[in-house]
Amino acid sequence: MPTLTRFSVRPLAQMTRQLAAVASGRAEPDGVITGARVLSTYSDRILPERELWLSGGRIAAVQPAGRYRGAAPRYDARGGIIAPGLVDPHIHIESSMVTACAYAEGALLDGVTTIFCDSHEIGNVMDVAGIEAMIEDARAAPLSIFLTVPSTVPATSAALETAGGDLTADKIAALFDRWPEAVALGEKMDFVPVTMGDERAHAILAASLSRGRPVSGHIYGREFVAAYAASGITDTHEAIDRDIADDLLEAGLWLFLRGGPPTTPWHSLPDAIRTITELGASPKRIAVCTDDRDADDLLHFGLDWVVREAVRAGMTPAQAWSMGSLHGATRFGMEGEIGGLGGGRRADLVLLDDDLRPRCTWYGGELVVEERRITPVLDAALSARYRYPDAAYHTVRLPTSLQLTPDLPGTAVTAHTIRTELPGIMLGHVTLRLEPAPDWRTHFDTHDLCFVTVIERHGKSAGNVAHGLLNGFGLRDGAVASSVGHDSHNIIVAGTDEADMQIALAAIEKAQGGVCVVRGGQVTAMVDLPIAGLLSDRRVGEVAEATRALKAEWTRAGCTIPYMGFNLIPLSVIPEIRITDRGLVLVPQMRLQPLFEPV
Amino acid sequence: MPTLTRFSVRPLAQMTRQLAAVASGRAEPDGVITGARVLSTYSDRILPERELWLSGGRIAAVQPAGRYRGAAPRYDARGGIIAPGLVDPHIHIESSMVTACAYAEGALLDGVTTIFCDSHEIGNVMDVAGIEAMIEDARAAPLSIFLTVPSTVPATSAALETAGGDLTADKIAALFDRWPEAVALGEKMDFVPVTMGDERAHAILAASLSRGRPVSGHIYGREFVAAYAASGITDTHEAIDRDIADDLLEAGLWLFLRGGPPTTPWHSLPDAIRTITELGASPKRIAVCTDDRDADDLLHFGLDWVVREAVRAGMTPAQAWSMGSLHGATRFGMEGEIGGLGGGRRADLVLLDDDLRPRCTWYGGELVVEERRITPVLDAALSARYRYPDAAYHTVRLPTSLQLTPDLPGTAVTAHTIRTELPGIMLGHVTLRLEPAPDWRTHFDTHDLCFVTVIERHGKSAGNVAHGLLNGFGLRDGAVASSVGHDSHNIIVAGTDEADMQIALAAIEKAQGGVCVVRGGQVTAMVDLPIAGLLSDRRVGEVAEATRALKAEWTRAGCTIPYMGFNLIPLSVIPEIRITDRGLVLVPQMRLQPLFEPV
Repeated sequence: MPTLTRFSVRPLAQMTRQLAAVASGRAEPDGVITGARVLSTYSDRILPERELWLSGGRIAAVQPAGRYRGAAPRYDARGGIIAPGLVDPHIHIESSMVTACAYAEGALLDGVTTIFCDSHEIGNVMDVAGIEAMIEDARAAPLSIFLTVPSTVPATSAALETAGGDLTADKIAALFDRWPEAVALGEKMDFVPVTMGDERAHAILAASLSRGRPVSGHIYGREFVAAYAASGITDTHEAIDRDIADDLLEAGLWLFLRGGPPTTPWHSLPDAIRTITELGASPKRIAVCTDDRDADDLLHFGLDWVVREAVRAGMTPAQAWSMGSLHGATRFGMEGEIGGLGGGRRADLVLLDDDLRPRCTWYGGELVVEERRITPVLDAALSARYRYPDAAYHTVRLPTSLQLTPDLPGTAVTAHTIRTELPGIMLGHVTLRLEPAPDWRTHFDTHDLCFVTVIERHGKSAGNVAHGLLNGFGLRDGAVASSVGHDSHNIIVAGTDEADMQIALAAIEKAQGGVCVVRGGQVTAMVDLPIAGLLSDRRVGEVAEATRALKAEWTRAGCTIPYMGFNLIPLSVIPEIRITDRGLVLVPQMRLQPLFEPV
Repeated sequence: MPTLTRFSVRPLAQMTRQLAAVASGRAEPDGVITGARVLSTYSDRILPERELWLSGGRIAAVQPAGRYRGAAPRYDARGGIIAPGLVDPHIHIESSMVTACAYAEGALLDGVTTIFCDSHEIGNVMDVAGIEAMIEDARAAPLSIFLTVPSTVPATSAALETAGGDLTADKIAALFDRWPEAVALGEKMDFVPVTMGDERAHAILAASLSRGRPVSGHIYGREFVAAYAASGITDTHEAIDRDIADDLLEAGLWLFLRGGPPTTPWHSLPDAIRTITELGASPKRIAVCTDDRDADDLLHFGLDWVVREAVRAGMTPAQAWSMGSLHGATRFGMEGEIGGLGGGRRADLVLLDDDLRPRCTWYGGELVVEERRITPVLDAALSARYRYPDAAYHTVRLPTSLQLTPDLPGTAVTAHTIRTELPGIMLGHVTLRLEPAPDWRTHFDTHDLCFVTVIERHGKSAGNVAHGLLNGFGLRDGAVASSVGHDSHNIIVAGTDEADMQIALAAIEKAQGGVCVVRGGQVTAMVDLPIAGLLSDRRVGEVAEATRALKAEWTRAGCTIPYMGFNLIPLSVIPEIRITDRGLVLVPQMRLQPLFEPV
């Protein structure tokens, strides 16, 4: 039985008399946090020393410091700044490869107390059952986790790839009707079909809009903005450049500026902030988000770091913190419950240094992080994590015998290869003429190639295996493999010979999911992901450590793009060429392409 | 059958494909408004020349001016500024003494396209039936009218006054569950009982909060703010001074700054705006509202005027218009539908001069005001106004024989009189020693007095009549009377002799409601209010004209406070002394007080 969850604090409707009594001085608070300055997200100011009277996990009153004279426990916060807990308006928990319960630890250390999560990875593997398991996980977590229901599963169609999930408008409607925490439709990323009036896409939009749920989005390309906004999408989490940011804001979308770690290609926040300040736009409809975080980055480049980056880029501290808290809450209609230090709100609080580094976090009035270390209360809650159903531990279903490498062509052929390059999102389509050669190694050395293979793992095909060639990936020996191949999450293996690739695949099958590196015939690094082939069932610190070791080994193996980029190789919606279990996909044309063609 | 209502525009969920097709250029818009600058409430800027492509009463796209090349009708708006229609977040339609359908005409002339209405006057007279009749009225109006459900009916208790309505938590819950336009709980004005934890008050709050509906408020007094906010109230529409405005904002309440006409005591907006600007507070949670408007003021001092006053007081035009549109929409969770010019939003639009004077208004894409005159489309809609049920026309139920003046005391007595003075809200408690005199006229001349009498009119008592004396009201001859005596709306009559007061009462009974002046034994001015004794059934222009005539006659009769202040004399929640059908009420003590006491 979880000891600390979102439900530990009763609904406000049941608490108003108690809170009024405490605020009026007729009843004692449970505790008082006193002496800190207060960061007001309501007015974007930092106010002089105050104290917070807490009751039942909520804020009963904010008063001038020193007013409370009773015997309730006091927390001396002098010298610090009290602010509302951060609110991340767009996040995929699966990117951190941990469960919702485990994610909570990283979030709370970052001062994040609420997240809006789009669990579309597990939806792609396990359909509604996966999403509902993750909701149960979220309900058991010591963190407020709301769902933006996955809107685009599968990402394309069964003609181009085999997914485990197929979220129709009817299934999405049922999720809204069953789960009160399903507060919005998740990023409607198939923006071209949306703007073209695709029936399935618009039926899904209607399922959300007709229930009063807003729709989140994700879009590239100024030419699509008007039709996308007209389709009812009211946020996005990209701001590529000044012109599109301007277009998106004026089309009525809330802008979530994504702050990617400086170690990744997604570090666009400073440019995005400057876009807003240079436009002279009010920041009232701008928020910040993290979107995706490797487990190890979660502990160093969380939303608190994004807020500090926004300050570095020119926002005032109070404006930046509002963009990280109240604005996201307002976007999802929850500003009466979270995002500020108003009366009756949840006591989700952060005590900050002057540079906005979180020192302490209170979740629903419970001190869960004290001087940057988790408290025993939180440790106990994290030790009683939700366990996913057995079915979630058995999602890698492979044929008994598979050939992972293509036959060596006996004659000259044109090969359609996939060119990898940083930042690792776009992939180039490179055609090469392969002359007859004695072995694959000759081709690899001549053309800077290695194998890439995608194996259907949902048990939904007759054992689909697709062979391809990567150009420029840098892998010289051994193999790497992952069960996190976006978005259908089939198994992706790259390597230079059949044996090492079979070892990598076997390791993943045995663990029922993971990301691994094979060198010298051995698995030299692996993150086990036994839940849906996507998530570890360990705590975030352990997963972060395994991730760091994996990244180091990944680099030692010579791979030129990071594993998160590798995982995107099957994502058949981004140009120019991808590989799914059905084969090579040319993206602008949305059609399959044989690997070899006669010269 | 009404021809133009809120429902003339289909829900967005049914229109996304059509709008995407128009925005993408695959389908023709219904019309294009081209060449105007655009006031962006999303970024608080005025943008260069654009054009709006409209379809099905919604905005399909906002594009640079001149982009549209098709054959759809164009409206040339060059030289002007296009802005979203204004949103009034707090208004009592009954204050204008017109129906919702009739109110629409005044609102649209002011550029107001959405109002959030608290119909607590008709609730006080007719209970749920009155509120539901006004919802039906609102549904038939060419205006978007949402209900904030009356929360405090009766204002006090049956011990102190007899009201027609008694809105319990159960009745309020049923209104929420039946009517989708019941989007919030209306101003919870009994702030002392709320902060003291009164059970009935908190049951009503719970009925709203447990249904996810926010709670509107109204409060005086810094000492009550914390407990009021802790009770779940999240807006208020007063900002008396800088300190309480600061307290309210930081307690998490949205501030609606009320702009009263300069002809009234409620002209506090410039001070309120300065309060915000001097505090250095972001205006993102500040809106403006009108609250109450006499019918004649509605046409001259509408919300557009309030916005212009905010500009005069230091806001930028774009900030001020946002406070009059997007911010109220956001507060009530409707920013995806109204309050800005985003894609998919209702085409509720205003074409403005550079000084923010509305020239044209489009409601759901229909041009309803053109160059400050209503169009034939609106005229037709206003000619098919909702008719209230017959019961609403029969709400003044008086005993057959009544004595409206007290017996002349035969001995010296202490009289508890009500001192009226401008601005007309607070009333002083003045005790006078009345020596025996030959007639009332002698007392009146000596002490500047006249009679005031309240007659229960809901048929709920055994014919309650209460006698009192007004001090300083200025009435020398004749009588004035009103069926709009807040909040229970019993009949209030003031005068100097029984006969004139009987004439005034008879006129009101005959019309089944109204406000009138009697001079020289004749009714010399009257506004008939046959619906619930509160509303005329005529168009707003006619009611405005009758109101102007009434005000002129009211002044000629010598009355020192305006009729709206007179109507507040029975409002038994404002200090120091009031009179209800039960007698004199001492407000701080909340007890009845006999008119005369032995010396």
